[in-house]
Amino acid sequence: MNQKGDIPRFQAKENSPARTNSGGEGDSRNRGMSPFSLRWVGDAAGQLEILDQTRLPGGLEWIVCRDVDTVVEAIKALRVRGAPAIGIAGAYGMVLAAGETAGHGLGPEAARAHVLARAEELATARPTAVNLRWAVERAVAVIADLPADTTAVALADALLVEARAIHAEDRRLCEAIGRHGAAILPAGDILTHCNTGALATGGAGTALAVITTAWDAGRRFTVFADETRPLLQGSRLTAWELVQRGIPVTVLVDAAAGHLLATGRIAAVIVGADRITACGDAANKIGTYGLAVLAEAHGVPFFVAAPSSTFDLAIDSGKEIPIEERAAEEVLAPLGVPAAPEGANAFNPAFDVTPARLIRGIITEKGVISPVSREAIREVLGG
Amino acid sequence: MNQKGDIPRFQAKENSPARTNSGGEGDSRNRGMSPFSLRWVGDAAGQLEILDQTRLPGGLEWIVCRDVDTVVEAIKALRVRGAPAIGIAGAYGMVLAAGETAGHGLGPEAARAHVLARAEELATARPTAVNLRWAVERAVAVIADLPADTTAVALADALLVEARAIHAEDRRLCEAIGRHGAAILPAGDILTHCNTGALATGGAGTALAVITTAWDAGRRFTVFADETRPLLQGSRLTAWELVQRGIPVTVLVDAAAGHLLATGRIAAVIVGADRITACGDAANKIGTYGLAVLAEAHGVPFFVAAPSSTFDLAIDSGKEIPIEERAAEEVLAPLGVPAAPEGANAFNPAFDVTPARLIRGIITEKGVISPVSREAIREVLGG
Repeated sequence: MNQKGDIPRFQAKENSPARTNSGGEGDSRNRGMSPFSLRWVGDAAGQLEILDQTRLPGGLEWIVCRDVDTVVEAIKALRVRGAPAIGIAGAYGMVLAAGETAGHGLGPEAARAHVLARAEELATARPTAVNLRWAVERAVAVIADLPADTTAVALADALLVEARAIHAEDRRLCEAIGRHGAAILPAGDILTHCNTGALATGGAGTALAVITTAWDAGRRFTVFADETRPLLQGSRLTAWELVQRGIPVTVLVDAAAGHLLATGRIAAVIVGADRITACGDAANKIGTYGLAVLAEAHGVPFFVAAPSSTFDLAIDSGKEIPIEERAAEEVLAPLGVPAAPEGANAFNPAFDVTPARLIRGIITEKGVISPVSREAIREVLGG
Repeated sequence: MNQKGDIPRFQAKENSPARTNSGGEGDSRNRGMSPFSLRWVGDAAGQLEILDQTRLPGGLEWIVCRDVDTVVEAIKALRVRGAPAIGIAGAYGMVLAAGETAGHGLGPEAARAHVLARAEELATARPTAVNLRWAVERAVAVIADLPADTTAVALADALLVEARAIHAEDRRLCEAIGRHGAAILPAGDILTHCNTGALATGGAGTALAVITTAWDAGRRFTVFADETRPLLQGSRLTAWELVQRGIPVTVLVDAAAGHLLATGRIAAVIVGADRITACGDAANKIGTYGLAVLAEAHGVPFFVAAPSSTFDLAIDSGKEIPIEERAAEEVLAPLGVPAAPEGANAFNPAFDVTPARLIRGIITEKGVISPVSREAIREVLGG
C-alpha cells in the first residue's frame, strides 16, 4: 500500500541519506498488508534497508545503509525506532562495520578493532532501550568466538548469520508474545500508546501483536491509539498499521486518555517497553507512566508486552534507567511547525518509568509475568 | 511586542473574517507587556476587536466584529477562547446584535425579538463554559428591565454599558483571584495546563494571574506549561504571555507531566475552569483530569482558579456538564499538517471533568474554597 502523495510529508529533512521511494510495480517492500521496518538485502557484502518512519504515513521511503554512520543516523533520528527494531538494526549494522574494513587491506587484527569500535557507536546510538546493546553484544560475542586470524570478509559472513538469527528470533518472539497476550486480553476496547507493531520490531510487534493476534482470532473491538507526542508514533505509525489491517482505530491526544478511561469503555491498556528492571519497573515512551496511573485509578488492567531481551536484570530499580532527553524542537515545533515563542524552553524526556506495582502483567515470549515480582520475572525468564 | 514574521503562522484560514495586522508605529494594541484578548472601540455603534489567538504566537492579528455572526465564528473557531473572555465577547456581541437592528426601520418589538434571538446564538456558540451564557443572560436581563418601547439605539447603549461593566468586573476579578491565589501558592516550580492568562479573560487571567501576581511580588520559580494538545494553548499562548513578562517558562508535551511530577520539582499544579458544579467538580481543558490524578498520586496540591461566574450551582455532579466534542482534524492534523492515515477516526473531547476530591482549593475572587465542599462553596460564593 503506497500512500505517497496522499498526505503531505511529515518532515522534510535536508541532510537525508540515500533513499529510494517505493511504489513501482516491481517493488515488493511493504506492499500489501504486512508493513515491516527493515530488511537485509544480499549477502554479507549487501545492504540494510530501513523504512524511514519519520516519513510515515505520508510516504514510504527507504534508507539504504551501506555503512555504520548511516545506521547510527537512522537510529538517532528515529527513522527506525522501537526497542526490538533498533536492536536488529544494530545487529545488521555490525555486518556493515565488518564490510567497511573489507577491501582496505586491513589485517585481521585491525579489522576486528574497527568492528569493535563501531560496535560501541552502534550500542550507544540511543541510551534507554536495552535491546540495542543486547543485540550488538551478541554480535561482539560472535567475534570473540572466532579465531584471531579471521578475515574481514569472514567476520562479515559470521555477523550476518548472527544478525539474521536475531531478526528471525524476533519474528518468533513477536508471534509468541501475540499468542500469550491475546489469551489474557479482556474483551472490549483497548487503549495503547506509541507504536509497538511491525514497525517497532522485526516481526508482528509486541503490544500491537497482542491486539492483532486477538483480532485475527475473531475478537472484535476498537483500538484507541494515543497520538504520542512529541513524535506522534501513535497517529502516524500505529494508526497506519491498524488501518492497513482493517482494524478500527481511533486516535486521541495523549491528554484525553483520562477522560476516555473515565467513560468506562476501555477494557485494558497495553503498551511496549524499552527496558524492564529486575523488579519489573518498565521504561517506555513518555506518557506511559501517566497512563498507568490513570488505568490504576479506574481499575483498568495495564499490561506491558516485550521480549525477554528488554529485561535488564543488572539493575533493580527503574530509577537506574537512563532517560534520554531529546531536542527541544520536538516539543516547540510539532511536525516541524514552530508553535512556541522564542524564549520558551522545553522539557523533552523521551521515556518515563512505570513502577512494577502499576503493571498487571508483563507479556513475554516465554509467558505472562503476573503478578509482577522479582521472583515471577526470574521464574518466567529462566523457564 | 510584535512577533509577526518571526515564526510561521499557526494556521492559515481561507475564510477569514475582516482582520487587521498590528505592528505599525501607531498601533497601541498589545504593544508592551500586557497582552489582551479583546476590546470595544467607540460608542454603541462601534466595533468589537478580537485578537485572533489561532495566529499566536506567530502574528498579532485582530478580528474586527461589526455583527454577531463574526463574534459567533470567532468563539466557535477559538479565535477568542477562555471561559471569561468568551463571556465578555458574548456581552459585546449583544451590543452588536442591537446595532444590527438599527437603521433597518424595525420597531422596538421587532428589534428586541432580533436581539433575543441573537442572544441564543451567542449563548450556545460553545456548550461547556458557563460564563458565556451567564454574560449573555446578564445582557438579556438588562433588556427585560427596559420599557417595551425602547429603541434599538437605546438598547445598544444600555447593552454596551452592561458589557463594559462585565469587562471591567472581570479585570477586578482577575486581580482578586491573583491576590488570593498568590497568598496560598507554595514556593517552588509551578505546572499549568492550557492558557488562563490575559488572553483567556478580560484582565490578568485566572490561574496565570495567580502565577504572575506571585512573580510580581518577588517570588521566583519556573513555570512548566503543558503544551495542551490539540490546539496548543500552552505552547502558543501561555508561553507567549510568560515570555513577554520575562517569567521563565518551560514547555512540555502533555504526556510528560507524569514524569515531571515524579522528579519532585513541582510544588503545585494550577489550572482554570470552564464550569464548576455545586459540589466542586470542575470542567476544564482536556487533560486537566489526568493531571489532577497525577498530582494526587505525587502529593502535589492541585488548585483551580476561576471567577464565581464559572460556578453552575444548578447542577451538582460533573457528570451533568455537557462536554464539547470538536472536529477530528484538530487531532489528526496538528497545526493543520495531516499526521494520521486516511481511515483513522478521532476522539476529541475539548474538556474533561475533575472531581472535587482531587482539588485542594478553588481560588475565586471572593476567596479560596478549601477544602472543597458544597458548604464551603456556598459560604464563599455567598460572602
